[in-house]
Amino acid sequence: MDLAEKLDALEEIRKVKARYCRFVDTKQWDALKNLFTPDCRFDGSGGGMGEIAGRDQFVAEAAAGLAGCVSVHHVHNPEIEFTAPDLAEGVWAMQDMLRWEEGSSSPLRSLHGMGHYRETYVRVDGAWKIVAWAVTRLRVDVVPA
Amino acid sequence: MDLAEKLDALEEIRKVKARYCRFVDTKQWDALKNLFTPDCRFDGSGGGMGEIAGRDQFVAEAAAGLAGCVSVHHVHNPEIEFTAPDLAEGVWAMQDMLRWEEGSSSPLRSLHGMGHYRETYVRVDGAWKIVAWAVTRLRVDVVPA
Amino acid sequence: MDLAEKLDALEEIRKVKARYCRFVDTKQWDALKNLFTPDCRFDGSGGGMGEIAGRDQFVAEAAAGLAGCVSVHHVHNPEIEFTAPDLAEGVWAMQDMLRWEEGSSSPLRSLHGMGHYRETYVRVDGAWKIVAWAVTRLRVDVVPA
Repeated sequence: MDLAEKLDALEEIRKVKARYCRFVDTKQWDALKNLFTPDCRFDGSGGGMGEIAGRDQFVAEAAAGLAGCVSVHHVHNPEIEFTAPDLAEGVWAMQDMLRWEEGSSSPLRSLHGMGHYRETYVRVDGAWKIVAWAVTRLRVDVVPA
Repeated sequence: MDLAEKLDALEEIRKVKARYCRFVDTKQWDALKNLFTPDCRFDGSGGGMGEIAGRDQFVAEAAAGLAGCVSVHHVHNPEIEFTAPDLAEGVWAMQDMLRWEEGSSSPLRSLHGMGHYRETYVRVDGAWKIVAWAVTRLRVDVVPA
Repeated sequence: MDLAEKLDALEEIRKVKARYCRFVDTKQWDALKNLFTPDCRFDGSGGGMGEIAGRDQFVAEAAAGLAGCVSVHHVHNPEIEFTAPDLAEGVWAMQDMLRWEEGSSSPLRSLHGMGHYRETYVRVDGAWKIVAWAVTRLRVDVVPA
């Protein structure tokens, strides 16, 4: 990659994460699934969640966990570095603001979390995909249901 | 446009939206007006607001609505695509935090909104301008006056 | 600088500020110090803070002020312009959310601030550094201890 191609790849990667947030918050589950490699892995253990293997399982759990929930995910200030021409790693600051409707099965009424995403991206057939990502928390404020 | 020129145009468009937020929040109404084409259109119907035609009318309504109000607008994670060399469309995640002072004519004391901006940009005489934009809301928290 | 080199420099500057937030919030004080020139100057007078000269003094004061505090700093929508090939100025929207633990010496339990950073960057031996920055506030919400 020359310099312009590298910068263009960075822009494409940033848009993948932008779509991740938008598709989660607008509950576009099929579109969300397409952002990942089939065998992707999510590590939520640093954020009070568990580990999830595979995009089918992640999207199924996200859809179930956000049933009856209005979610807002914002990510900030990416630091993205290429580790190979088709491989990159990134850190994003994040905050999420979740609120479940009354009568939902969630033990929480609301959650406001702040922390970081650490992610690995791979380029497959010209399209950047998330292959692994983890969330860590600086702070989580919750209101029980 | 070659690749570097495209990336430079993206940066210029991102700065237009950054200025939009900054000029609204610092109440620089003349500078704000210059970010739009004269015949721009704002669609706030997805966010509980109305439709506004023309930059003069938009800036007049923004100035009136934010009288006695400290506003904070933050936008995140743009997904911007060119539809022609001098035309682009973008989606931004957003949050705004508004607080009106006591004694203001607003029916609200505060508003915290979260959602998306969808925008169209046009390049006129080398400068990118906002020609149309709309806001949709995921969630709005208000405190009445 | 050609156009691609200019855009690459912008990306490097954005990452300096991203690291600033991340290193403050994860209390990596030695790494934080390396983001500044030795003689940098911080002007917090527009945000209820004071002026600080030198990176050693800034990092010492930051570490002391954030003892017993979980801090979250998010910055948004940079407007960065080059004033010389190795010199740039930027404005960022910002919010910070600080919460001190019970028993800390802070007079505050929490602070939520919103405003702008105005910064100057210089390239030294190929690496961009913060040489001066200031914070101004649109709004600050505090809860006393």
